Amino acid sequence: MEPVKIGLLGLGTVGGGTVTVLTRNAREIERRAGRGIEMARAAAKAFDPTRIQGLEIIRQIGDDAFAVVNDPEIQVVIELIGGYSPARELVLTAIANGKHVVTANKALIARHGNEIFAAARERGVMVGFEAAVAGGIPIIKALREGLAANHIEWIAGIINGTGNFILTEMRDEGRDFAAVLAEAQALGYAEADPTFDVEGIDAAHKLTILGSLAFGIPLQFERCFTEGISGVGAMDVAYAADLGYRIKHLGIARRSSGGIELRVHPTLIPERRLIANVDGVMNAVLIKGDAVGPTLYYGAGAGALPTASAVVADLVDVVRTLTTDPNNRVPHLAFQPDELTDTPVLPMESVETAYYLRLSARDQPGVMASIASILGEQGISIEAIQQKEPAEGETHVHLVMLIHRVVEGRMNQAISRIEALDTVQGAVTRIRMEALSG
Amino acid sequence: MEPVKIGLLGLGTVGGGTVTVLTRNAREIERRAGRGIEMARAAAKAFDPTRIQGLEIIRQIGDDAFAVVNDPEIQVVIELIGGYSPARELVLTAIANGKHVVTANKALIARHGNEIFAAARERGVMVGFEAAVAGGIPIIKALREGLAANHIEWIAGIINGTGNFILTEMRDEGRDFAAVLAEAQALGYAEADPTFDVEGIDAAHKLTILGSLAFGIPLQFERCFTEGISGVGAMDVAYAADLGYRIKHLGIARRSSGGIELRVHPTLIPERRLIANVDGVMNAVLIKGDAVGPTLYYGAGAGALPTASAVVADLVDVVRTLTTDPNNRVPHLAFQPDELTDTPVLPMESVETAYYLRLSARDQPGVMASIASILGEQGISIEAIQQKEPAEGETHVHLVMLIHRVVEGRMNQAISRIEALDTVQGAVTRIRMEALSG
Repeated sequence: MEPVKIGLLGLGTVGGGTVTVLTRNAREIERRAGRGIEMARAAAKAFDPTRIQGLEIIRQIGDDAFAVVNDPEIQVVIELIGGYSPARELVLTAIANGKHVVTANKALIARHGNEIFAAARERGVMVGFEAAVAGGIPIIKALREGLAANHIEWIAGIINGTGNFILTEMRDEGRDFAAVLAEAQALGYAEADPTFDVEGIDAAHKLTILGSLAFGIPLQFERCFTEGISGVGAMDVAYAADLGYRIKHLGIARRSSGGIELRVHPTLIPERRLIANVDGVMNAVLIKGDAVGPTLYYGAGAGALPTASAVVADLVDVVRTLTTDPNNRVPHLAFQPDELTDTPVLPMESVETAYYLRLSARDQPGVMASIASILGEQGISIEAIQQKEPAEGETHVHLVMLIHRVVEGRMNQAISRIEALDTVQGAVTRIRMEALSG
Repeated sequence: MEPVKIGLLGLGTVGGGTVTVLTRNAREIERRAGRGIEMARAAAKAFDPTRIQGLEIIRQIGDDAFAVVNDPEIQVVIELIGGYSPARELVLTAIANGKHVVTANKALIARHGNEIFAAARERGVMVGFEAAVAGGIPIIKALREGLAANHIEWIAGIINGTGNFILTEMRDEGRDFAAVLAEAQALGYAEADPTFDVEGIDAAHKLTILGSLAFGIPLQFERCFTEGISGVGAMDVAYAADLGYRIKHLGIARRSSGGIELRVHPTLIPERRLIANVDGVMNAVLIKGDAVGPTLYYGAGAGALPTASAVVADLVDVVRTLTTDPNNRVPHLAFQPDELTDTPVLPMESVETAYYLRLSARDQPGVMASIASILGEQGISIEAIQQKEPAEGETHVHLVMLIHRVVEGRMNQAISRIEALDTVQGAVTRIRMEALSG
């Protein structure tokens, strides 16, 4: 089957990331989508070719975005220019030309979404905008499909990474807003003009979208209450902490008796809540549905590759719809049935992990040395070892060890040898350890 | 348009929850799906009619499940019986009869999924199983669609609520496994025969499914390494805490050089990780994709209504596919365009929240009383008030107050009056507060 031909508008951060993901994961994406994706054409005013991995795959790159949306060969337009105009005109032209659209443009959707969606319905094309809210977190899919059984009661989201980074630093370092903002700008987490982020406009765009998805109301960005974080003082962060709270910049959409609340503002939340512990540039959205209860979705809310992850997910949705019959749109096991692999599932003996070990040993000299030498002979290195004092009247102590990553088979041998020592009592308790670091 | 006719197999916990959700949220579900859903028929061997809200809506209830899957009128079969047999035969018969299937049966999918999916593809029907993993969390949709751009590196999930409840209680109360298990059984969180939960078999069923979705391998339950939590001692939980770790029962699927790891076992993880703080019966799945980085999905992993949320989400997927053309399968704003409402977005003055207030006041008698009396006159109640000592050389103290929920308009008036006091310096800092409780 012919690959689906896409046209990219914009080769900035997200555009570059999208090219990289489509290139690097081309085969795996095709195994899922059931069809190849061809980057037939791109348009960008200015971009840095040295920073985009995979750029050479694009067949034709120019600077005229309208030429792309008017190119009869292009089936899907990926709008990654941002802003209201000419993004709006480009998207509407693409739709009028019968092309499907994927966009990461939250401002465009929040302000012109009603018009764009009406045009798309009329023309029978798809418009995907998963990347417009919370970057790589598939929150629109969760809300629109995954929670479709629920009466949504409220949503509360950390949906601007810059603001969350600033508030996190203010708390961790006890520093003032202005100092942290300057640092965030130096690190590239905040724009030279940070207004959209720190005054909550970016978050309000995203919340407007979430509110409509949750409550079935048209997009009404102009009615979203928006207050930024520039008025939060270092002392407020500290006083809140004293009282058991964290300050987060939240977007809140809530159904209340008189209507819908749509509001973005700094918010004290109890420090025990999971969302209170979402730090740095990460995003998280907490949704309360009447059936499912609270669910939370966490991940990177910005950045080239995370945002591209959402753009390409929408693209896979489009490609699947164009490719298979509706009943087989999403393959049961994510990959097309003829694309499953026979990669072996490893026996546990071949798996490498770190370990916590606990054992009872006689409280006498040389015990620790004999255990350590068994581990050493098996090529196993100890990260930490602690002796826990014996309880009164007991002759055995507990030894607790943390062991660096090693293949399970080798650890099994070491444990057998340790258990055979006559200074060791009973079995060795072994619990595996994982860092789970990003 | 005629409603879609469904047949329910099983009216136990999840079956009852599904009836309740379909009844209670019928109108909202129809606004999303574009078509009504009719509970035409159900089969159950035994059930408690007094415990199922909405049961009277079902047109026909019998005890012969095969009669349901052979009923020509039924378009979608919802299998909520559980276990391998006769669930397998019922599902295969439903498919052979050209019916779509939705199931919450993790054991069935983990063990017979390859056969069931092949039959469904051949017959061109859908099989949804979102409810089979992590209850109400739309994790299958996230992995299969939302993260389709990614090369998945690993997944680590707390995917058995009973096990997580036991480990959480062991840590919080310092109690032993056996004592907590008995308590969990008394509370109804653990079955009389807890083997499936505490020995990790239930988690292994779910992990088998997640591993296939992540890595594109056939379902291979028999190759999943499974170790339960019965060997974790209270002292291990305590020693791990001393070292900065929590013990969680994780299902881990990882791509490593030699193949795929599929393993369920107790695991030490650093206490700062978000997933280490998922407590009680809640579930969470952490997924590492090469583009998106780590994302986490959190929510209730079991229970009547949360599991029904996932069952009905799958049903909405089916109904949408049966109802609209593929390009309009999912409405842009979640609800069908002619089903959007004009529910007003409230002005901020009408929104009710709690507040944190901070102000500078002269350090003299009567100041706190005058502020408190203004708040009292506006009908605003104070939850806490703290005076922070003035910095050296300063004549003003900080007053910090927590205010119970009140309408913003009234708070605005109170703040104006407080700011007008000549004992108060400058503006009042006001930060809203939300409990975000489930």
